[in-house]
Amino acid sequence: MLPRHARIVARLLERLPGVGERTAARYVLHLLAAEPALSLALAKALEELHERVRPCERCGNLAEVEPGAPASPLLCEVCADSRRDPTLLCVVARVQDLSAIERSGAMRGRYFVLGKLVSPLEGVGPDDLPLDLLKQRIVDEGIREVIVATPPSVDGEATALLLSRELATTGAAVSRIASGVPHGSDLEFADQVTLGRAIAGRR
Amino acid sequence: MLPRHARIVARLLERLPGVGERTAARYVLHLLAAEPALSLALAKALEELHERVRPCERCGNLAEVEPGAPASPLLCEVCADSRRDPTLLCVVARVQDLSAIERSGAMRGRYFVLGKLVSPLEGVGPDDLPLDLLKQRIVDEGIREVIVATPPSVDGEATALLLSRELATTGAAVSRIASGVPHGSDLEFADQVTLGRAIAGRR
Repeated sequence: MLPRHARIVARLLERLPGVGERTAARYVLHLLAAEPALSLALAKALEELHERVRPCERCGNLAEVEPGAPASPLLCEVCADSRRDPTLLCVVARVQDLSAIERSGAMRGRYFVLGKLVSPLEGVGPDDLPLDLLKQRIVDEGIREVIVATPPSVDGEATALLLSRELATTGAAVSRIASGVPHGSDLEFADQVTLGRAIAGRR
Repeated sequence: MLPRHARIVARLLERLPGVGERTAARYVLHLLAAEPALSLALAKALEELHERVRPCERCGNLAEVEPGAPASPLLCEVCADSRRDPTLLCVVARVQDLSAIERSGAMRGRYFVLGKLVSPLEGVGPDDLPLDLLKQRIVDEGIREVIVATPPSVDGEATALLLSRELATTGAAVSRIASGVPHGSDLEFADQVTLGRAIAGRR
């Protein structure tokens, strides 16, 4: 049985995905056996996490808040990268999916993070998605092609269908990543080759 | 690619046992998607971890430092529990092993945490172990039986052998936890050493 304060730390670590009671206790014992500097560095870094890392105001990706720099608009690395194709936009559900696609190196354009998928079961309808923002951006930036990279799940496909209809008025071509991605899997854990092929084989 | 500060947090989380690059990134993204309160609570708890949790001055187990209470000597829950058999002492290598034995509920006595095992390969000799402290405690507290619960590994067995020799002068009986086939396991898949020990240690 861990001392009370160690249990408090363990209970908080259990809120991380996939961390159970045993794993949390293991983490705490490891931290206690290590130099205090590790726990203190982690404490300091976590304290600043939400201040220093915020959503990109253009695409919803994570962006670093530079202490000295003028704050508006806050742009992520991808949006700030002028070598990106400004006419190509990839729509993803989550930041994790954006990171996975970036790792594949197959996307030359920029992104738009939806934040959620339409889901009748969870009561998420088309009105809950930032469709107006997306359309506005496509028009404002003269986007010529939108690649819909929502996951190959029921909700992901429903969202892709919704987008292909909704974005028809913008004049941009709407494509869908190919089903090289195994059905029902999570984009975050797809390997780079699979993701690269899915993007190259879009239709 | 995570923003710089998120990578700093991820890099620190990678120092936890069994946490690789992917898992650390997953933890950070989860924290960023959750309320800032979770990161802040974790930060605060980690900041105080080494102040609030210290080794028990008697046995080496983890003990809670009570802010108000007189600090010396700092005792863990087991040492502070007067219902424990004061004549029975269990010697373990690590706090983790102590916790595992406590969970079994099979130990009525108290503990002594060695902190390490003799290991010729890692250059840990008998002089690196707190043998004098252990002997002193056995004599001072009138311990009658010492149960050596070091792991059934090469280093654990070497340490057990060393203890049985070193503690002979204290007058306490020295026993060794049984090694054999684990409960609920399949004989077919037990390794040869385990089966050999199970047969040699029959009773």
